[in-house]
Amino acid sequence: MILFGLEALQHRGQESTGMVTSNGVTFNTHKGMGLARNVFNSDNMRRLIGNMGIGHTRYSTSAASEPINCQPFVVHSIHGLLAVAHNGELVNAASLRKMVLERGVGLSTRSDSELITQALCLNPPEGEINGPDWPARIKHLMQLAPLSYSLVIMLKDRIYAVRDPYGNRPLCLGKYPAINENNDLSTGWVVASESCAFLSFTRYIREVLPGEIIEITTNGIKTVDIVPRPSGHKQAFCIFEYVYFARPNTIFEGQEVYTVRSQCGRQLALEHPVEADIVGSVPESGNAAAYGYSLQSSIPFGELLSKNTYVGRTFIQPNNSLRQLNVALKFSPIGTNVKDKRIILIDDSIVRGNTIGPIIKLLRKAGAKEVHIRVASPPLRFPCYMGINIPTRQELIANTHDLKDLSKQVGADSLYYLSVEGLVKAVQKELKPNPELGHCTACLTGDYPGGIPDELDW
Amino acid sequence: MILFGLEALQHRGQESTGMVTSNGVTFNTHKGMGLARNVFNSDNMRRLIGNMGIGHTRYSTSAASEPINCQPFVVHSIHGLLAVAHNGELVNAASLRKMVLERGVGLSTRSDSELITQALCLNPPEGEINGPDWPARIKHLMQLAPLSYSLVIMLKDRIYAVRDPYGNRPLCLGKYPAINENNDLSTGWVVASESCAFLSFTRYIREVLPGEIIEITTNGIKTVDIVPRPSGHKQAFCIFEYVYFARPNTIFEGQEVYTVRSQCGRQLALEHPVEADIVGSVPESGNAAAYGYSLQSSIPFGELLSKNTYVGRTFIQPNNSLRQLNVALKFSPIGTNVKDKRIILIDDSIVRGNTIGPIIKLLRKAGAKEVHIRVASPPLRFPCYMGINIPTRQELIANTHDLKDLSKQVGADSLYYLSVEGLVKAVQKELKPNPELGHCTACLTGDYPGGIPDELDW
Amino acid sequence: MILFGLEALQHRGQESTGMVTSNGVTFNTHKGMGLARNVFNSDNMRRLIGNMGIGHTRYSTSAASEPINCQPFVVHSIHGLLAVAHNGELVNAASLRKMVLERGVGLSTRSDSELITQALCLNPPEGEINGPDWPARIKHLMQLAPLSYSLVIMLKDRIYAVRDPYGNRPLCLGKYPAINENNDLSTGWVVASESCAFLSFTRYIREVLPGEIIEITTNGIKTVDIVPRPSGHKQAFCIFEYVYFARPNTIFEGQEVYTVRSQCGRQLALEHPVEADIVGSVPESGNAAAYGYSLQSSIPFGELLSKNTYVGRTFIQPNNSLRQLNVALKFSPIGTNVKDKRIILIDDSIVRGNTIGPIIKLLRKAGAKEVHIRVASPPLRFPCYMGINIPTRQELIANTHDLKDLSKQVGADSLYYLSVEGLVKAVQKELKPNPELGHCTACLTGDYPGGIPDELDW
Amino acid sequence: MILFGLEALQHRGQESTGMVTSNGVTFNTHKGMGLARNVFNSDNMRRLIGNMGIGHTRYSTSAASEPINCQPFVVHSIHGLLAVAHNGELVNAASLRKMVLERGVGLSTRSDSELITQALCLNPPEGEINGPDWPARIKHLMQLAPLSYSLVIMLKDRIYAVRDPYGNRPLCLGKYPAINENNDLSTGWVVASESCAFLSFTRYIREVLPGEIIEITTNGIKTVDIVPRPSGHKQAFCIFEYVYFARPNTIFEGQEVYTVRSQCGRQLALEHPVEADIVGSVPESGNAAAYGYSLQSSIPFGELLSKNTYVGRTFIQPNNSLRQLNVALKFSPIGTNVKDKRIILIDDSIVRGNTIGPIIKLLRKAGAKEVHIRVASPPLRFPCYMGINIPTRQELIANTHDLKDLSKQVGADSLYYLSVEGLVKAVQKELKPNPELGHCTACLTGDYPGGIPDELDW
Repeated sequence: MILFGLEALQHRGQESTGMVTSNGVTFNTHKGMGLARNVFNSDNMRRLIGNMGIGHTRYSTSAASEPINCQPFVVHSIHGLLAVAHNGELVNAASLRKMVLERGVGLSTRSDSELITQALCLNPPEGEINGPDWPARIKHLMQLAPLSYSLVIMLKDRIYAVRDPYGNRPLCLGKYPAINENNDLSTGWVVASESCAFLSFTRYIREVLPGEIIEITTNGIKTVDIVPRPSGHKQAFCIFEYVYFARPNTIFEGQEVYTVRSQCGRQLALEHPVEADIVGSVPESGNAAAYGYSLQSSIPFGELLSKNTYVGRTFIQPNNSLRQLNVALKFSPIGTNVKDKRIILIDDSIVRGNTIGPIIKLLRKAGAKEVHIRVASPPLRFPCYMGINIPTRQELIANTHDLKDLSKQVGADSLYYLSVEGLVKAVQKELKPNPELGHCTACLTGDYPGGIPDELDW
Repeated sequence: MILFGLEALQHRGQESTGMVTSNGVTFNTHKGMGLARNVFNSDNMRRLIGNMGIGHTRYSTSAASEPINCQPFVVHSIHGLLAVAHNGELVNAASLRKMVLERGVGLSTRSDSELITQALCLNPPEGEINGPDWPARIKHLMQLAPLSYSLVIMLKDRIYAVRDPYGNRPLCLGKYPAINENNDLSTGWVVASESCAFLSFTRYIREVLPGEIIEITTNGIKTVDIVPRPSGHKQAFCIFEYVYFARPNTIFEGQEVYTVRSQCGRQLALEHPVEADIVGSVPESGNAAAYGYSLQSSIPFGELLSKNTYVGRTFIQPNNSLRQLNVALKFSPIGTNVKDKRIILIDDSIVRGNTIGPIIKLLRKAGAKEVHIRVASPPLRFPCYMGINIPTRQELIANTHDLKDLSKQVGADSLYYLSVEGLVKAVQKELKPNPELGHCTACLTGDYPGGIPDELDW
Repeated sequence: MILFGLEALQHRGQESTGMVTSNGVTFNTHKGMGLARNVFNSDNMRRLIGNMGIGHTRYSTSAASEPINCQPFVVHSIHGLLAVAHNGELVNAASLRKMVLERGVGLSTRSDSELITQALCLNPPEGEINGPDWPARIKHLMQLAPLSYSLVIMLKDRIYAVRDPYGNRPLCLGKYPAINENNDLSTGWVVASESCAFLSFTRYIREVLPGEIIEITTNGIKTVDIVPRPSGHKQAFCIFEYVYFARPNTIFEGQEVYTVRSQCGRQLALEHPVEADIVGSVPESGNAAAYGYSLQSSIPFGELLSKNTYVGRTFIQPNNSLRQLNVALKFSPIGTNVKDKRIILIDDSIVRGNTIGPIIKLLRKAGAKEVHIRVASPPLRFPCYMGINIPTRQELIANTHDLKDLSKQVGADSLYYLSVEGLVKAVQKELKPNPELGHCTACLTGDYPGGIPDELDW
Repeated sequence: MILFGLEALQHRGQESTGMVTSNGVTFNTHKGMGLARNVFNSDNMRRLIGNMGIGHTRYSTSAASEPINCQPFVVHSIHGLLAVAHNGELVNAASLRKMVLERGVGLSTRSDSELITQALCLNPPEGEINGPDWPARIKHLMQLAPLSYSLVIMLKDRIYAVRDPYGNRPLCLGKYPAINENNDLSTGWVVASESCAFLSFTRYIREVLPGEIIEITTNGIKTVDIVPRPSGHKQAFCIFEYVYFARPNTIFEGQEVYTVRSQCGRQLALEHPVEADIVGSVPESGNAAAYGYSLQSSIPFGELLSKNTYVGRTFIQPNNSLRQLNVALKFSPIGTNVKDKRIILIDDSIVRGNTIGPIIKLLRKAGAKEVHIRVASPPLRFPCYMGINIPTRQELIANTHDLKDLSKQVGADSLYYLSVEGLVKAVQKELKPNPELGHCTACLTGDYPGGIPDELDW
C-alpha cells in the first residue's frame, strides 16, 4: 500500500525514493535513486516487513540529488530507532544547522531533512525534556523552525504526522478501507502530502491542521498538540500547489485542485478575452484551465497538441535548432483542430519561456491563423525557500522581459497572464471566510510568510 | 535525426531498438533492449557515423523479445554489407523459412525479419539474377512473400524503401529540411512508418505505394519498381492503425488519424446515442473519438479521468483487489466533472476487458449517477498474422461475452461498440472512390486479405 | 597513488572501498561496494582532486557489508569537514555507543567507525577542550577507547595518523619518492596499515608507535602526542597479522613477514618432523612456511598444487560432492611431484577444516603414497573482538575435534599444529628484548589484551 | 558439470563464455561477456536443462571481442538445431568465407567459427551428401579447411568431437565418474581442450586423434572417421600450449605439462648455467621451469616475488613511471630471499618485454646483488594464424632487440633464452619416436605446418 502511495505521489519527486517499515522491533529500509517502480521490486519489497511504515519521493531543493540525501533518514537514537521523511524546506536551516553542529554532532549531508532528524535526537539544552518525550521534542523543533514542512516521524511503535504552523506544505489524513467496500486489505490510517495517494482504497478524512502533531499507533490516532504560529501571522498554504504542483484530483482545503484550476481558466477568460475559433491547452497541465476558459468564453474546447509520453530528457546538448526539435518530439499539433484556426492556447505557467516559443512555431507551421497565449497563473518573479525549486531571478523570464517583449519573442499574437488578485480570488472563491485564511504567494509577490529567509550559505 | 525519429515512433515498439549507419565503406551498429532514450547515449551515438542510416523500434510478434531478435539485422553478403529493418509479419513465414533452410542456410533466430535478410542474400534458384542486382532480389522476395511488411534495406551506398503489394503496413516519404525554414541541418530524404516521425524538420511528401520499391542514394530518390498484388486483390491497409496504433497527428492516405478517430466518435454518436451530462474519454487514446461524439451529440466534452504518467507495469501479481488498485493508480477521476453526473465514457477499443470494469467502479465511487460506455471501434474477434500482437481468441472478451453480459460484468449502465460498417465509413469518408481501395479488417471480421495464413509451427 | 595503495591493500578487505581527497577547501568522495579496481574508474578518479587524501578497503566485522557502512566516513562538524578511515574494531563499542547516543546524537549505522567519527565531533562534557583542538579530541577518544584501531583522520588541511596504545593494529609511515630515483611524482608522506602499500615509490620510514598521534601537513610530519597504555599492560600487536593476514613482503616490527613465516616453518619442522620425499604448500599462503620447513628438514621443496586464479565464490549451494569439486576446481595436483611420493603439505592455518580434507583426497587420487599435514600456526579456538573476523567457537574445528579425530576425519597420515610457544618464539626471534614487548594471541589462547571485551549487543 | 569445466578452462579465454544444452527436443542457450563465474548464475543455470551440452570460453583472435561473436554458435538448419564451439583459427578462413558467401548466405559476423557453422549447414555443391549425414558434412568441411580447430558440434541428440588433421589444437576425452568413487553424479562422457577440465570427477581416457571425428550419444562413443592430413605432412601440435598456454596439470600426448616445463628448466640450466645463490620464478607461470633449473643446477629454489592476485588491468594510461608502479603492484619482492643475493630469475617467455625490466628494477631496489634472467622458451618472432593471439612482428621484442641490447635495456646482468632445439628436445624427451611425430613451432621459426596462411583481409 505504501508503494502504491509513492507511485501516486511520484509527480512530487522523481529523483530518489525510499521506504522504511517497522515490525515493532526493528526497521527495514530500502532507498534508491530514480522512480519507485524502478527502485522497488519483489525482492526488496519482501524484506520490507512490518505493520507500519513511511515512504518518500524526493526532488532536490538545497541538497544535491545523490544517494546520501535519499529519504527517509533513519538513525539510532538513545530512545530507539527513528525514521523521518520531510516534504518542504527549512527557511532557517542555516541557523538551525549551526546550533546542531555546536552541540557536537557531525552531519553527513547538507540536507535540512538530516538536520531535522538530528535536531529531534538532541536533548534540548534547557533540560526541560527528559527521556523519550517525542511530542515535546517535536514541538521544540517546531518552535525553533516554524517553516516549512510536512513530516512523518516513525518510532518502532508509532508514527507522528506533523504539519508546519503556517500550513505551508500540505498533509492530509485518510482511513482505509473506504466505506461500503468488501476489501481484503486490513484497516488503518494513512497520511500523505496529497489525497491523490489514497487512490480508491483509502477514505479521505481531513487535512492535518497547521501546527498539528498527530500520533498514530495501533490504537488509532490522537492529536497530541497544535503548535501555534508566531502571533499576527496568517496561514500560508503554498498557492503554487494549486497552480502547478499537485495532481488535479487532489483535495486541498476541501476543494478539488481541478476545480480551482478550472476556475483560474474562467477568471483568465474574464480578465483577458479574445475572439477565437478554438481554445486548447499545453497538455496535460493546462487542461483544467482551458476547460474553464472554454466554459466562460463559450469558445469550443479542442485538443491542439498530442503529447508523446515516451520522450524524456535528451542527452543532446541543445542549440536552438535541437530545442525546437525536442519540443516537436514532445508535442505534435493536431492538424484537424489547428489548420486555418484562430487559437487560444492555455498554459499553466511560464517559467523560463523555453517551450512556449517552439510550440507557437509548431502551431503556425501546422496552419494556425492566430495564436493567443493565456497563462493561467501570474508571472513567477521570486525564488521560493520553502520547497519549490524555482530558478534564479535571472532565469525567470518574467524578470527579464515585459509582456510585450515576451509576446513578440515567442511569436504570439497576444499573451497575457492571470493577475495575482485573480488567482487568489479563484483559489478562495469557495473557501469559508476566516481571519486566519491566507496563502503563500511569495514566488509571485516576494511577500514571504515568515519574513525574508536566511540566505543559505554553507 | 534518426534518433529523433525513433523516439517519435517509440509507441510502435518499446521492447528493443537499434540503429545502423553507413559511411559508404562500412556499417556502424548499436542495438539494445528497451526504449531509444535508454539504449542510445552520447558515447554510442558518437560511433554511429555516416551519411545514411536506418533504425528500428521493436515490439515482438512471433519471435521472442530478446537481444538476438533486435533489429536492424546486419549481414555480410557476397555483394557487400546489408542491413534490414522490418515492420510487419510474414504470413507465409513457415514456407519461406523451409525454402531458405533447404538452400543450406543456418538461421540464428525464429525471426521472420532474419528470414527476409537471408532470403535477400540467396541466389534465386532459377538463376535469372546474377550478381548484385538488389532490386531484382527484392522483387523476387516480394513475389515469394506478398504480406506484410514495410522494409528499409541498406547497402553501403543506398537504401531501398519497400512496401508490401497490399499496402498492409504503412510507409511514407519525406524530404528535409521543411520549406521556408533556415535550418542548420543538411538536406535529404526520410522514410518512416508514420509521418509523425518527420517532426517539424521534414516535409511530408507522400506515401510509398503498395508494392513500390524506392531507391534512395545521394543523388536523390527513384522508383525502381512497383510489384503488383495477386490479381483480384484490393489494397488492404490495416484499419487498426487508424483505430489504435498510430499517433493522432500521423497522416495515412492523405488524412490525419485524429480526423478519422473524431469521425469514428461522430459515427458512434449516430449509432448509439444516449442522454447524458458530459462526455469524456479514457485518456489519451479515446480523446479524439470523445471529441467527435461531443460535437455530434452536443453533449459537453469534459475531462473525467486524469492519467498518472509515472505508472508502469507493476511487478505485483494481480488479484482482483490489486488490479483495481493498479487502475486507480493509473486513472484518477476528476470529481468536479464526475460527481452527480450522467457520464458517457469513450474508449478506443476493448480487448481483454480488464481495465474498463475498474474504471467504471472508480467513477461510481467518485459519485457518477450513470456510466455509459461507448467503444469507438468494433469488437476484436480474430488474431492478426500481419504485425499486430492481438491476444488469442479465448482472451478476447468479445469472443466470450455477448454485449449484455459484458455490460453487466463491467458494471456499465449501457455499453455499445461502433459497427464494422460504421468504422469503414468513417475511415473512407474523405477518400477518393477507387476500385482498388480497401482496408484490412481481419481482426474484426476474420476476412484475411491474402487468405488464411500458414499456421506458424516451427 | 592512493588508488595504487588501496589495490596493494586489497587483501585486507574486499567488500567495499572508498577514497576522500581534500583540496584545502572542500572534500571529494567516492565509495562503493567491491574491489578498488571495479569501484574506481577514470571518471570518478578525475573528480577526486586535491593535494591529500585517505582511502579504505573494508571487510566487515560487526557492522554489515552494506553501502551505508563503507568507509571513509565524512561529516561536517562545527570545526569543519572531517573524514575518518578505521582499521580495527572497538572492544568497548557498546559503552562508547551508549555515551554518544546519550549526548543526543542519532547514529546512522551500527558501525564502530561512525561511532569514532561522531565521538571526535562531540565536545567533551568536562569542557576542557574548547574549539578545534583536534589532537585533544583524538587523545580524549583514545582514553575512552584504548583498543583497537589504526586511524587516519583528515581535516581540510591536515591528516592525523593514529595507532591504538596497545599497538594492536599495524600502521606505518613512508616518504616518497624513494631514494636514488628520478621520478615524476612529487614528494610527500604516506601512512598505511602495511608497508606493502608503499610499492616501489615510497620509502619505508618506521612504524607509527603504539599510542602515537602524528600530524601530517604540507609542512611535514610531527608527533603531537603518544597516549600511554593503562599501566601494567604490554604491547599487543596482533600475531595473526604475521600468520595469515598480511602480505609476505610487509614489514612489521622491523622484520619481513615472509621471514617470520619461514621461521614458523623451521620451528614446525623441529616440533613435528616426519620422513618424506617432498614438502610443499597449499598455495600461496603456505609457501613461506613450506620453504622454511624444507630448509630445516632438508626435504626438497616442490610444487604440489597449482591454483586456479579464476575461481571465485560459487553460487551453487554446496553438498559434499560439490564442495569436493569446488576444491578440485581451485587446486590441481601436480602429478609429477605427487605420484608415488610421501608428501608433507604445509598449510598456514586450519579454521573450519572444510578445505584440507578435499585437498588430501585430490592428492591421494593423484597417487600420493602418504600425506602428512603440518599447520604453521596453532589451532584457532577463540573469537577476536579486535578486527579479525573469526568464526564462532562452534565453527572452529579445533574446538570440536581433537588432533587425532581431525587427522582421521580429513584423511591425513598425520596432522600437527605449531605450538603457541613455537609461534611466539618464531615471531620474537629477531626482536630486541624489551619489557614492553608483547603480542596478542587472544584467538589462540583466550588471553585478551584489554581484558574480556563488552559482549556486543545492540 | 559443464560450468565447472568452463571455470577450469577459464585461462584459455576470459573475454566471453557461453553454454548450450539439449534436452533432446530443443536447445537452451546462455552467453555473455566476461568470466564464467560472472556470466552464469543460479537463474540462468536453472534454464539450461537437458542431458547434454557444450560450452566455450573465448579469447578473441581475428573477430572482435563482442557479444555477437560469443560462442557456441547456434543455428536452425534444415536438418535441425546445430550448436558449434570452436577452439582454434581457420588458416584459410578468407577463401572458405568467399565460398560460403557465394552460396548466398549472409554472415552476421567476421568470426571463422560462424563460418564453420554455416559451412556445415550448406549442401555440398557436388551433391554427394544428401540429407542429414552430419559426419559427411563434417568430413567435407575438414577437407576444405584442414587447420586449425578442435570442435564440438551438438545436434539435438548427439555431440561430435572433432580435431583437425594436424592435431594442432588439443582435445581429449574423459569418462565420469572417475573409478573407485561413490558419486552422486550420473555417468557419461566429456571432451575438453585440456584434461584439467576433468577435475576430480572425470577419468582421463585419451586424446582425440588428429583428424578424428567422435560421435557421442546416450549409447556411448564411436569413432566415425579419421580424416587424413595432406600427404607428407607430420603432426603439428602447438608447442606454445606446453610453454605457456595450458595449465600445469594438463596432460598432452601422455605427459603432464608441468613435467615438460620442468624439463625445459633443466635444459635451460644445461644451455645457460651461471653461478648464483638462489633461483626463482616470475610467478606463477615460471614455477615449473625454475624448479627444473634448480634441480639441474643444484642452486636452491626460493620465492623471489609474491604476486598480488587482486590486481587487474588498470584504466590508467601508462607512462613509464606508472608502468613501473603497476608491475610493483603486481609483484612484490621477498626481501628475505632477494637482499644481497645473486639471483637467477626464470620467466616462461618474453613477448613485448614490458614487464621484465620493471621486475629487475624491483629486485635491485630490494637489494639483489646480481639478476640473471633465463627464459624457458625461445624468442617469439612470428605471428600465429592458428589460434594464439601473438602481437605483430614489430611489437615482438625479439624482432627489434638482439640478446645483448635486450639484456642491457632491461637491466639484467645476463639474459638467455632456451634454444628451439632445446625446447623440442624437452617436449619430445619422453615421447615414443614415430615418423608422424611433430610439433608446430611456427611462432618461433616461421615454419607454418600447412604452408603460409591466407593473409586475412576482409
